[in-house]
Amino acid sequence: MPDEGVRAATSEATTHRLSLLLRALRVLEAEGVGTVSSHDLAARFGLHSAQIRKDLALFGEFGVRGVGYRVAELKDRLRNLMGLDRSRTVVIAGAGNLGQALADSRNFNSDGFHVAALFDLDGRKVGSKSRSGVSIHHASEIPQAARELKAEIGVLAVPAEAVPDVARALVDGGVVAILNFAPVTLPAIENVVVKNVDLTLFLENLSFQLKERGR
Amino acid sequence: MPDEGVRAATSEATTHRLSLLLRALRVLEAEGVGTVSSHDLAARFGLHSAQIRKDLALFGEFGVRGVGYRVAELKDRLRNLMGLDRSRTVVIAGAGNLGQALADSRNFNSDGFHVAALFDLDGRKVGSKSRSGVSIHHASEIPQAARELKAEIGVLAVPAEAVPDVARALVDGGVVAILNFAPVTLPAIENVVVKNVDLTLFLENLSFQLKERGR
Repeated sequence: MPDEGVRAATSEATTHRLSLLLRALRVLEAEGVGTVSSHDLAARFGLHSAQIRKDLALFGEFGVRGVGYRVAELKDRLRNLMGLDRSRTVVIAGAGNLGQALADSRNFNSDGFHVAALFDLDGRKVGSKSRSGVSIHHASEIPQAARELKAEIGVLAVPAEAVPDVARALVDGGVVAILNFAPVTLPAIENVVVKNVDLTLFLENLSFQLKERGR
Repeated sequence: MPDEGVRAATSEATTHRLSLLLRALRVLEAEGVGTVSSHDLAARFGLHSAQIRKDLALFGEFGVRGVGYRVAELKDRLRNLMGLDRSRTVVIAGAGNLGQALADSRNFNSDGFHVAALFDLDGRKVGSKSRSGVSIHHASEIPQAARELKAEIGVLAVPAEAVPDVARALVDGGVVAILNFAPVTLPAIENVVVKNVDLTLFLENLSFQLKERGR
């Protein structure tokens, strides 16, 4: 097994494929499937069998020769590997349409994650709750509330101009990862994992595929 | 130059990298930069110079030896290649928080795209407009309105159980690409480009990076 202490950070492409593999394993487990080969995984879920084996090989020995992968076991090992075997607390800055949509989304309250608070500057929103019951606090409370809630992940769903201040407040509150949905790139912050999400990429991907089909 | 008629569909990874390259070129053009080398692109925007050359080589001859890439020219060729040199009309099914956030988002009303309508079942929303002025129509009008608006891209921001019917209505309305934000996978549809977006992937990516840092 590779020494995790010296292994370079796993690439985003590999991480993405491991997420898709984990999703496939969850489906199979729900169906009561006990073991699966990389070929079956590939055929059914549109994954690439050699790539699955290559990605997993980065992390150790998986699978049993002649049997394939034990679904429940591989799922648990992946969840552990990806840090999803415990619930990470998420707080969301910005209680506009996007912030509230994320707070109430099944995606953001799934295996491994829990949205604990929303923050906004708008006094009419502060003190109320999102549809699913996430409390909206004043933005000035971010550092203290994030610390009390032991928030690890902060989500930015604020206007572009608010990004620097809000990011700083989240980091002051002990947040160690930031997912930025604002339409501006948040630069790297020391000791914080920063991910900028740009939803335009999805539309551009569709446009490109349409163009390739002559449309 | 490769024959576009026989070339296999470009991989999602390549598409994604071309989008990031296009973004970098837009920034450089706005700064008045005339030419740029693949090494400078790599250094400044975190791209990979050999990969840039490899991706672009799929589509023909780009760049001038000893000069690098002409920023404006490469940007225009990429926009053409990705079908972004004309405005594609987008309609959004579901005028809840997510649908309205997308309708009002700068990302969805940027180079190449224009949100023309929202659809919802809720009579209290029908007839009103989103904050940025996108009209909300009744969901029963999807096929006719999509056709009249010449919508090419339909976005699903509806509950999971509504996905099959709404996807069918969009396709009946002539939509040729669907971006699905609902928490359920939309299966392939003949002659339609389908992209399922799962926002959990972003959180899982952060979690994995935190885990790799020992958190």
